[in-house]
Amino acid sequence: MAENNLRILLRARPEGRVGPEHFEVSEAPPPAPRPGEALLRNRFLSLDPYMRGRMSAAKSYSAPVEIGAVMEGQCVAQVEEDPTGRFQRGDWVLGGFGWQRFSAVPAAGLRKLEEDGAPMTTALGVLGMPGTTAWVGTTELARPRPGETFVVSAASGAVGSVAGQIAARMGARVVGIAGGPEKCAFVREELGFGECVDHRGEDFAERLRAACPEGIDAYFENVGGAVQKAVFPLLNDFGRVAFCGMVAEYNDAEPAPGPNLMQLVRKRLSLRGFIVSDHPRAFADWRRIGGGWVRDRSLRYREEVVKGLDKAPEAFMGLLAGKNFGKLVVEVT
Amino acid sequence: MAENNLRILLRARPEGRVGPEHFEVSEAPPPAPRPGEALLRNRFLSLDPYMRGRMSAAKSYSAPVEIGAVMEGQCVAQVEEDPTGRFQRGDWVLGGFGWQRFSAVPAAGLRKLEEDGAPMTTALGVLGMPGTTAWVGTTELARPRPGETFVVSAASGAVGSVAGQIAARMGARVVGIAGGPEKCAFVREELGFGECVDHRGEDFAERLRAACPEGIDAYFENVGGAVQKAVFPLLNDFGRVAFCGMVAEYNDAEPAPGPNLMQLVRKRLSLRGFIVSDHPRAFADWRRIGGGWVRDRSLRYREEVVKGLDKAPEAFMGLLAGKNFGKLVVEVT
Repeated sequence: MAENNLRILLRARPEGRVGPEHFEVSEAPPPAPRPGEALLRNRFLSLDPYMRGRMSAAKSYSAPVEIGAVMEGQCVAQVEEDPTGRFQRGDWVLGGFGWQRFSAVPAAGLRKLEEDGAPMTTALGVLGMPGTTAWVGTTELARPRPGETFVVSAASGAVGSVAGQIAARMGARVVGIAGGPEKCAFVREELGFGECVDHRGEDFAERLRAACPEGIDAYFENVGGAVQKAVFPLLNDFGRVAFCGMVAEYNDAEPAPGPNLMQLVRKRLSLRGFIVSDHPRAFADWRRIGGGWVRDRSLRYREEVVKGLDKAPEAFMGLLAGKNFGKLVVEVT
Repeated sequence: MAENNLRILLRARPEGRVGPEHFEVSEAPPPAPRPGEALLRNRFLSLDPYMRGRMSAAKSYSAPVEIGAVMEGQCVAQVEEDPTGRFQRGDWVLGGFGWQRFSAVPAAGLRKLEEDGAPMTTALGVLGMPGTTAWVGTTELARPRPGETFVVSAASGAVGSVAGQIAARMGARVVGIAGGPEKCAFVREELGFGECVDHRGEDFAERLRAACPEGIDAYFENVGGAVQKAVFPLLNDFGRVAFCGMVAEYNDAEPAPGPNLMQLVRKRLSLRGFIVSDHPRAFADWRRIGGGWVRDRSLRYREEVVKGLDKAPEAFMGLLAGKNFGKLVVEVT
């Protein structure tokens, strides 16, 4: 095999904003599979906001990426060779193979992806981790009831777009929050949410209030920052907030103060953070339920595919700044 | 009847600290029962932190007390006369009869208190609203499991003292937080909590950390402020916080910022506010369960009885400053 293994390594830990100086593009010979391992060729790499946390050494739910190590990430790959005989060359598999062209991993633990009519990239987005995150946060934590107002931030994103559509199927009135008129139009017209408010526009808090004349019963939090500040005063008694992430604050060197929590008592609020990997059974549930909706085209999703692994750092920086539109995937060429 | 009706009225709404200028002591003839009403003589008035909220016009879960109206409060009273014939003179009843000596209320809705061996004042404290609050917050929201670390602030108070004892019965290791060495000694020695940390002492945060070597799994929040700031970093993954109140901040004119909420995601925390009146069935449950523990003397409690209704404003100001010791009750003379 003549091709080298292109890899993106973590060069340094960002203190604030992530920049190109925190990554290193490196080439190495492809790994040689050890006994029991298969050699994989990544086809698509998923870029997700949680990766910002892995770049820091701060205590979190997962160990950080080591300096000099390959950046972590979920990938859809094809088997290049499998000396164990479990897989055929060309079989599709899903796993955390990282920001690199080739990887050698134990064949026994590999999860095969069947070609079932949904595009392979959906395993990284609408039917994968982001979609399952939306499923858990909406149905288990935010729990909108028919007639209630459900608000989701980053509404055009990989998680928010699915969360709002699930909430609508649960009978809620869905109000999205997104950045810019183009994303808001997509949320209203393509995703069919009742309303979408542009958090970059003037008088955002006033317009959100106007879009939620009966207050907010359930909020799916992806963003934090100014969006969170505008949402909290609108929460109704017995309101539920599912905390999925706060991407607007990931580049902050110091955490900003949050809301005073006495309102939790006054309004009997429930605020719950979650991480989808704590809900392992939800992945198959959602693939079954959401997969049906993808195949019958009743669940809408949008993907932005960036060509070339060397573009991954720039695309990731854009993701943290809200520049992507829909699920961000890198095509590994 | 020669006696006048001594009443404490709300004279003005406090913007910050509550002072004597916000109350008016007034005398009026006793009310004349209208058809269907009984005339009651209050014997004991309960003073509770939630009353601070009723003095403000800010939106809350209950309407505020009107300027010039009698301050609201739960009382144990005796029937003075009941023209409807439902009650005998001298019967004991429980209800929100207010900061006054006499009241005339519909006899049909009155809740009679049986003399069952527990002192009448316990209906205002350990077996009443504060005890039921501890029961709901501990068993339904904080939900400590055997071996977990349960922390409660205002641990010597009417709610905290009961919450910690319930958590201990649920198998948790209980750490109290209280103000001053005398209260801490009571919490350790009388209530039998494993530890009690004085939040007024130096290095409070360090000493709390040392008292919770395995972190905090469940926290019963009564105080807010600096105590909350010290507790949050110690919360373990999947930690639960029951928000009952934040008395240290009730006199603040502006709400102070709270903790950054990204930690909810990282640690998968659950933060829930509650108000006991949303759990009406819990009152009878707790009176049955807690009543058994009071009668067999396995549940410890402490009451501070202040003599004279005219002392109520001063006693209430002391309550907000943490000067009381145990459940604060005014004996209406």
